[in-house]
Amino acid sequence: MDNRPIGFLDSGVGGLTVVRELMRQLPHEEIVYIGDSARAPYGPRPAEQIREYTWELVNFLLTKNVKMIVFACNTATAVAWKEVKEKLDIPVLGVILPGSSAAIKSTRNGKIGIIGTPMTINSEVYPEKIKSLSPKMEVSGLACPKFVPIVESNEMGSSVAKKVVYESLAPLVGKVDTLVLGCTHYPLLRPIIQNVMGANVKLIDSGAECIRDVSVLLNYFEINHSRTEHAVDHHFYTTASSQRFKEIAVNWLGTEIDVQHVDLEKLNK
Amino acid sequence: MDNRPIGFLDSGVGGLTVVRELMRQLPHEEIVYIGDSARAPYGPRPAEQIREYTWELVNFLLTKNVKMIVFACNTATAVAWKEVKEKLDIPVLGVILPGSSAAIKSTRNGKIGIIGTPMTINSEVYPEKIKSLSPKMEVSGLACPKFVPIVESNEMGSSVAKKVVYESLAPLVGKVDTLVLGCTHYPLLRPIIQNVMGANVKLIDSGAECIRDVSVLLNYFEINHSRTEHAVDHHFYTTASSQRFKEIAVNWLGTEIDVQHVDLEKLNK
Repeated sequence: MDNRPIGFLDSGVGGLTVVRELMRQLPHEEIVYIGDSARAPYGPRPAEQIREYTWELVNFLLTKNVKMIVFACNTATAVAWKEVKEKLDIPVLGVILPGSSAAIKSTRNGKIGIIGTPMTINSEVYPEKIKSLSPKMEVSGLACPKFVPIVESNEMGSSVAKKVVYESLAPLVGKVDTLVLGCTHYPLLRPIIQNVMGANVKLIDSGAECIRDVSVLLNYFEINHSRTEHAVDHHFYTTASSQRFKEIAVNWLGTEIDVQHVDLEKLNK
Repeated sequence: MDNRPIGFLDSGVGGLTVVRELMRQLPHEEIVYIGDSARAPYGPRPAEQIREYTWELVNFLLTKNVKMIVFACNTATAVAWKEVKEKLDIPVLGVILPGSSAAIKSTRNGKIGIIGTPMTINSEVYPEKIKSLSPKMEVSGLACPKFVPIVESNEMGSSVAKKVVYESLAPLVGKVDTLVLGCTHYPLLRPIIQNVMGANVKLIDSGAECIRDVSVLLNYFEINHSRTEHAVDHHFYTTASSQRFKEIAVNWLGTEIDVQHVDLEKLNK
């Protein structure tokens, strides 16, 4: 039993899709979330910079006494998950392994699509992981650099969003039976993506898959939060406007939350 | 990637129900299984003796270069899992945590039954685990000492089996909405148990739940077997008659396997 919170990090608001899954599957667990919206999107940045930013987020979470860290961000997972996991003495989970594993279990024709930020797609981390687990899979990656800005600016319902998704996904339509949403922002565009890809294509939400693993690891390491009745006390931090973050978060999570602005660069000086 | 086998231990043939789940969910993984049928059932034995026998099984598996050990036996899990897990530097999984966790997720009225060997039931390990995770649950334990001998003697289809199950489960009928099969032998009696308890009672197979966790931990520790085409090379060992073990195993697993007799007492001298 361990009543400390679980830490979540993301480049911005995308990781909230992973948090929503945690709240659904493990409502007694407490959360500390840090979203680096001031420097989002991470996807187009050079790897060395993403590594540096990710460590700043990790170090911030460690000051909050977390018992586990979830990389609720594919780009940060692709660049820095392995390194952080090896250095910390608490469990550190990324979203890429659970997403890859779920895609392999889902596909019937062996043709898997991955959409993500340019960094995630160019890193080839998904195809490498999937092929190492199951060499016969055909994996097609597609960078969708316009998706994160749409979500970070809370324009998921706009006609622009529909047009962008339609045009971006065209190369994959009819080519795969399983599509990994390889960026935690993308579940916020899920209805449009499903509509464009067709009802027969199985969408894999890497963040939701990740939470199933969180549950198993909480058990394995015996660090579950007790399920006695308690008011769960979540804390959300953003490096940008707390007001804008809150608008998206309340809408997406369907619950009131407290959001605080934090200046990581000051903290790290 | 790690192509070494996964070790399974059990007091006898019951752990084959866990192996069947592994073969179904992770058909590319290789297995080394040791069943201590010569000294089964473990359930009525004193804890110190069960601990000693379990360590003999663990040490045998370690000579087979396993990458992970699954306690496919509730009694051994109740007595020695924690100790073995702490001492070994490979992952060690038991069946009690996954079974408890699944029962909590399954129940709607908060009334959970546990059936198991006298040792498992008297240890109160299931009620303790369930209540530590979720204090409001009402947990009723019931020892069913006659079930393991029926399975070990391959008499699951007999009219004696039906009578024994009917009489044994009477105290729980109508009292719970979820029943944990807290002994890996019991899934071999599943149709009779379901019939006696009623179709509305959800049966939790602790072994099957355990294999879902195996999959997650293989991912987390990055020790999956590659999925290249390979003839999987399983090895089964029993301390009693290899012929009788093989009859039950081939019938239950639906596949030909090689079974060898091993004398643990000689090995440990």
